[in-house]
Amino acid sequence: MFSQRSIHEKMLPMKRIDGGITAAHGFLASGVACGIKKTSELDLALIVSERKSTAAGVFTLNRFMAPPLHVTREHLSHGFGQAIVANSGNANSCTGGRGKEDAREMARHVGRGLKIAEDLVFVASTGVIGEPLPMPRIRRAIPIAVKNLSREGGKEAARAIMTTDTIPKEVAYTEQVGGVSITVGGMTKGAGMIHPRMATMLAFLSTDATISAEALQRALREAVNNSFNLITVDGETSTNDMVLCLANGLSGGEEIRPGSLAFRKFSGVLSRVCADLARMVVQDGEGATKSIEISVTHATSRAEAEKIAFALAHSPLVKTALRGGDPNWGRIMAVIGAVGKDVSEKKVTISFGKIPVVKRGMRMGEKAEQEAASHLAQEVCSLSVNLGMGKEGATVWTCDLSEEYVRINAAYRS
Amino acid sequence: MFSQRSIHEKMLPMKRIDGGITAAHGFLASGVACGIKKTSELDLALIVSERKSTAAGVFTLNRFMAPPLHVTREHLSHGFGQAIVANSGNANSCTGGRGKEDAREMARHVGRGLKIAEDLVFVASTGVIGEPLPMPRIRRAIPIAVKNLSREGGKEAARAIMTTDTIPKEVAYTEQVGGVSITVGGMTKGAGMIHPRMATMLAFLSTDATISAEALQRALREAVNNSFNLITVDGETSTNDMVLCLANGLSGGEEIRPGSLAFRKFSGVLSRVCADLARMVVQDGEGATKSIEISVTHATSRAEAEKIAFALAHSPLVKTALRGGDPNWGRIMAVIGAVGKDVSEKKVTISFGKIPVVKRGMRMGEKAEQEAASHLAQEVCSLSVNLGMGKEGATVWTCDLSEEYVRINAAYRS
Repeated sequence: MFSQRSIHEKMLPMKRIDGGITAAHGFLASGVACGIKKTSELDLALIVSERKSTAAGVFTLNRFMAPPLHVTREHLSHGFGQAIVANSGNANSCTGGRGKEDAREMARHVGRGLKIAEDLVFVASTGVIGEPLPMPRIRRAIPIAVKNLSREGGKEAARAIMTTDTIPKEVAYTEQVGGVSITVGGMTKGAGMIHPRMATMLAFLSTDATISAEALQRALREAVNNSFNLITVDGETSTNDMVLCLANGLSGGEEIRPGSLAFRKFSGVLSRVCADLARMVVQDGEGATKSIEISVTHATSRAEAEKIAFALAHSPLVKTALRGGDPNWGRIMAVIGAVGKDVSEKKVTISFGKIPVVKRGMRMGEKAEQEAASHLAQEVCSLSVNLGMGKEGATVWTCDLSEEYVRINAAYRS
Repeated sequence: MFSQRSIHEKMLPMKRIDGGITAAHGFLASGVACGIKKTSELDLALIVSERKSTAAGVFTLNRFMAPPLHVTREHLSHGFGQAIVANSGNANSCTGGRGKEDAREMARHVGRGLKIAEDLVFVASTGVIGEPLPMPRIRRAIPIAVKNLSREGGKEAARAIMTTDTIPKEVAYTEQVGGVSITVGGMTKGAGMIHPRMATMLAFLSTDATISAEALQRALREAVNNSFNLITVDGETSTNDMVLCLANGLSGGEEIRPGSLAFRKFSGVLSRVCADLARMVVQDGEGATKSIEISVTHATSRAEAEKIAFALAHSPLVKTALRGGDPNWGRIMAVIGAVGKDVSEKKVTISFGKIPVVKRGMRMGEKAEQEAASHLAQEVCSLSVNLGMGKEGATVWTCDLSEEYVRINAAYRS
């Protein structure tokens, strides 16, 4: 988490291009409907690099990590990978020994279809927790997914990992790094059960940069901390969160080494791709009608700023006030007082957009609140809380809590 | 919080009687509409003992404690009290020096009207945070509230402290203690911003028992820990929570001393009154369609059990599943894995009512889930999680999260 800066500010002179996971050289993808979802929607994604790649990943901190994550972590241990297979509609979580065998079998079938070692295949699942995967359907679908692989398949792959998402999420950027043009692309899914802790929902990234697994892991960890770890929809940490990145070196440049300018530039592009994808997750949060950037500044410690920022982002009363477009700063004060350790009511300044509604504990009055309400009528808003105590800060992203969130989640399994 | 017992089990051979705050000898009350609320509903409550009483109180842990609580704590410092004045519609919170002066003035006016010292008057406010009290209206209303005092006024007083509550909440019990019949009655309000920590929403209690302020404080602290501190609606801790108890000794019995059988009996009655009121709060939670008792047992520590129980009670995904009547144990597993420290997926047993849906990590299947769904169709349900790790436990009460909660809180100030 970076101090007192917004997710937007880390702008670099890189260029956004069309496409996502297949934008970098040598990546192919496909998405097929194998019948895990009750509808006939796409539910199996395959992402493949034309050649063996270095690989990095970060995983959920949930103690009940789902079986596919155990298998993927095992396969990632040597630092190489070539394919990612991911299904939606079923998380293969809390499925015990059978779940792990099923995840292994998915990797085995993909390896066989692609004629590569099964431990070069990473496996991911997302959807309902606690039900076994319908393996016969998945077995039948994998050869079709292999046959359908193409540069154009990125969009279908992004669609095939959606659960309650309303739109597929993909992005890609190019940048000159070490004398060659490199590309980083990615896709993500996630709309509920979003409160990543050192990891996230599902996000897959690909690049044609030349970089060791160790350096890639370092860049990925930083990128995730500056993006997916700054967002929350509902404070729920999933059993299946993971971010994976494959780097196949097909850009032809020299190896990007930690500490170099090239590494900083590469990290910048990777962070930007992750930040864009993270913002898309919040904007497509379950039932969300608007998204909000919450900054807490002038705290005595980063931990205090982060705690208050996430408490505001998780507060049902703050989230429903946002739903109603109400700059209800009293509720914000109550949250600060409830979770803050080193806070003083008389030092707190609260602003919506650039409009302060409370300055050093004093209410600014109705006119300011009306202007703040106009700011909150927008789809993308900001809230900043200046604690007036110290020099540390934190920024997180979240969305509002609407009736639709309740409807979606009261009915999810039925 | 007591270990592995439900809020119900502390049953004693006491008798529930009609009425609430005025059920004990020598207590009068009234409720008037002074125009703080935009509707013409009752919004000022007055509770008075015929004679000076010993008094005890517990207060919110929110760092931004509202001005009336500071004044009440000051007045409570000598252990005596005779009257409680409480308004709804405005919390007189985050109102600074003016707020404190207004709270003092409320006590002063009531003292003058009753011809008692102003420091025998306790002040409470509940409602919107951040707006100054309309003091002219309150000044005009206090003499009317004094004039209207009666034994029958308890119900109106209970109604006058309601905010988003849909029903007034009062209860009273009698018991033979030390050879005489004593009565404890009480009233409470609270439907949202409910997650008391060592304190609660507003609850006022009265008794005709003879007991020192110190002993009363001890009994009250225990009663609150076994009742209001076991409930949560939305995990929000208000700036205005308080529980007050007045004991006027008019039952004529001997003084109840700590350590005696009489003390244990008195504490039992007080706990029962608080538990009944706490249960009413959860059942009337904002937008609640049902309430649920959540027990976590066989944890390695009480703290771990409590953390998991409250995490389940605060989880938007568990609360919306409850709304939909869906025994969605996968979400429960995800919460346990996200917040538990000493947990093992293979040891977890999850039951709704008496129906296990997961036994030692193994799913019981669809039939069990259908039966569990029938249990969840009731208005009062229970969820128990056996961690299979140790001997400690905790029980909390909460309600579901419905579309109506969002509607209420998106519109609260408008």
